[in-house]
Amino acid sequence: MREIGEREVEWIAEGAAVLGTGGGGNTYLAGLDLRRLLRQGARVRVVQAEELPDDAFGPVLSGMGAPTVGIERLPVAGRFGALVRATGRALGRDPAFVAIGEVGGANALRPLSGAAESGLPVVDADPMGRAFPELQMDTYMIAGVPPRPLLLNDGKGVEARLEGVPDPWTAERYARALTWAMGGNAGVVVGVVTAAQVRAYGIPGTLSLAQEIGRAMERARAGKRPTLDAVLEAVPGGVRLFEGKVVDVSRRTAAGFARGHVVIDGLGAWRGERLRIEFQNEYLVARREEDGAALVAVPDLLVLIEEESGRALGSEMVRYGLRLHVLALPAPWELKTPAALRVVGPSAFGYDVDVAPLPGDLLGRAAPAAVGAAG
Amino acid sequence: MREIGEREVEWIAEGAAVLGTGGGGNTYLAGLDLRRLLRQGARVRVVQAEELPDDAFGPVLSGMGAPTVGIERLPVAGRFGALVRATGRALGRDPAFVAIGEVGGANALRPLSGAAESGLPVVDADPMGRAFPELQMDTYMIAGVPPRPLLLNDGKGVEARLEGVPDPWTAERYARALTWAMGGNAGVVVGVVTAAQVRAYGIPGTLSLAQEIGRAMERARAGKRPTLDAVLEAVPGGVRLFEGKVVDVSRRTAAGFARGHVVIDGLGAWRGERLRIEFQNEYLVARREEDGAALVAVPDLLVLIEEESGRALGSEMVRYGLRLHVLALPAPWELKTPAALRVVGPSAFGYDVDVAPLPGDLLGRAAPAAVGAAG
Repeated sequence: MREIGEREVEWIAEGAAVLGTGGGGNTYLAGLDLRRLLRQGARVRVVQAEELPDDAFGPVLSGMGAPTVGIERLPVAGRFGALVRATGRALGRDPAFVAIGEVGGANALRPLSGAAESGLPVVDADPMGRAFPELQMDTYMIAGVPPRPLLLNDGKGVEARLEGVPDPWTAERYARALTWAMGGNAGVVVGVVTAAQVRAYGIPGTLSLAQEIGRAMERARAGKRPTLDAVLEAVPGGVRLFEGKVVDVSRRTAAGFARGHVVIDGLGAWRGERLRIEFQNEYLVARREEDGAALVAVPDLLVLIEEESGRALGSEMVRYGLRLHVLALPAPWELKTPAALRVVGPSAFGYDVDVAPLPGDLLGRAAPAAVGAAG
Repeated sequence: MREIGEREVEWIAEGAAVLGTGGGGNTYLAGLDLRRLLRQGARVRVVQAEELPDDAFGPVLSGMGAPTVGIERLPVAGRFGALVRATGRALGRDPAFVAIGEVGGANALRPLSGAAESGLPVVDADPMGRAFPELQMDTYMIAGVPPRPLLLNDGKGVEARLEGVPDPWTAERYARALTWAMGGNAGVVVGVVTAAQVRAYGIPGTLSLAQEIGRAMERARAGKRPTLDAVLEAVPGGVRLFEGKVVDVSRRTAAGFARGHVVIDGLGAWRGERLRIEFQNEYLVARREEDGAALVAVPDLLVLIEEESGRALGSEMVRYGLRLHVLALPAPWELKTPAALRVVGPSAFGYDVDVAPLPGDLLGRAAPAAVGAAG
């Protein structure tokens, strides 16, 4: 158990923007909300799943919507604490912790607001190790944890509770439609997990990883070193993929998502080349513009670091003329099993690309024996 | 208190199709579901609001969606009874009756299925006296009854409960989005009403009116008389507006509605003229095609009677070449107050038409002193 203060919030915000791989929501506004809570005396405690009894349970919390909408709507005070309480009402038993639904972008911070508002600890793990655009792209769901209860909060006083949702695809469809009607932005609980399930199916230590990445970036900035070097030191399997200037951005916010692509004209070692990155909230595939060949694809992480600020850039903020560095980080092992790849691999997004996942693991763990073995 | 059998169900189905003014859902399938319940021994009792204690309350039940979808999805057994029970759970008190949310089309029958499945009586009144496309177009809502709780059932095991919905427009937006995600068709509870509220704000006797219209049509058919004459006898203020053959139908099912128009080429007394009827689930405005002049508009009822079958035709069934009679029936007084016209008049649908409502009342009641007086 450790406690998080304002500095840690800044680090987590910066690191979560990296893990957000373009999505998960803008961390600036979510960080403000959390810092306000801390200044008012609220406490945020972080626990490891191992510290909790097997049958302790918690709601899986996140924000849903298109990041293009998230930057236009301020965070609503109390929304995530209300969802924690609504979980207790729905189940007739009080949760013992808050689980992170997505460690990328603002969604790394929102469960911390929920924890601060409810007085419960937050568990240092999540089911993505990054951000993904759809609810079923989640190792808890892939393992068969049911998306029940499914709760949404519109931030204006309406709480929706859906009972009997049979599977995560239905949860995604219903929650997406309602989120869109709610103005494109909602707080959600997608089921509950026990501490035993977090240990069995979650990706451990991802909140700490976000904090570690953010802290390394801050140190690099203080030492006048490029922040991207700090990211690559914090995630040893990561690689520099490209560097250049944005020459084309196409972005459309529709049906609950921001979709589009970015084209980057190479500079430095990449002069004369062009990279095209396609996104659905998150950056999904990087291709050589020349022949369309895919270089990196989901579930591996594509990170755009803006040259001037040294910060990771969300898909809602990319614009013509920006100078960017593109990093690729290896997905955690949990996303590279055959069962996971069916849900989070390129084909799940409709891409027919044949690209090998980056070797290595987001958290630097040794390869488990099972990966690539079973069908 | 009276009890309804299979014959009454047939009459109500036929009369409700007239009051549906093109929408409210196809009565054939909903009638089948109700007849099945009756054959299994279920009972449907109809009470007048006056027979109930002031503070007895009931859920306002209806089906939501586009009628073009309703004819493609069979009614789901038990859906409306489940919504009655869900109302009890949401409020912590059991309802004493079932209220009809919309007496037009299949929505006249669905609350009867809910009553049969729950053993509660259904009240002979509704807040429309017809069908309307949107939730806020409802005299209970216009009078300020809150749309709480808002419950939806997808017919496949999912129940959604929305708490804290502030107003009927928000209810319409959220319920429409969820209905659409549910496949375009859902059972809904839009708030509860007490018997006192039914008496004060409801339109009384509309279920009986549907039954009376249907019975008169059946008698006319047996006597080889046109059914449209029977409708005009049952609703004294009604008029024959047009007769002809459909030469153009445009229909699009999108964003939760079936929208479009029908153009009818005149026959008989209307030879050489053309009538254009615009619809959003329900027929909304009838215009002279020649100059676009509006002849009849909401809230008055436009009824299309098919020549061959003598039956009222839903907007999902109109097709090229059909011979039709067009009737216009006066809306009930409750829909012609200034407050109601703001919500259900032509301007609420975006029409800038200046057409006086038909004189008279759907139920043949004398004009109340208040109509047209207050602003």
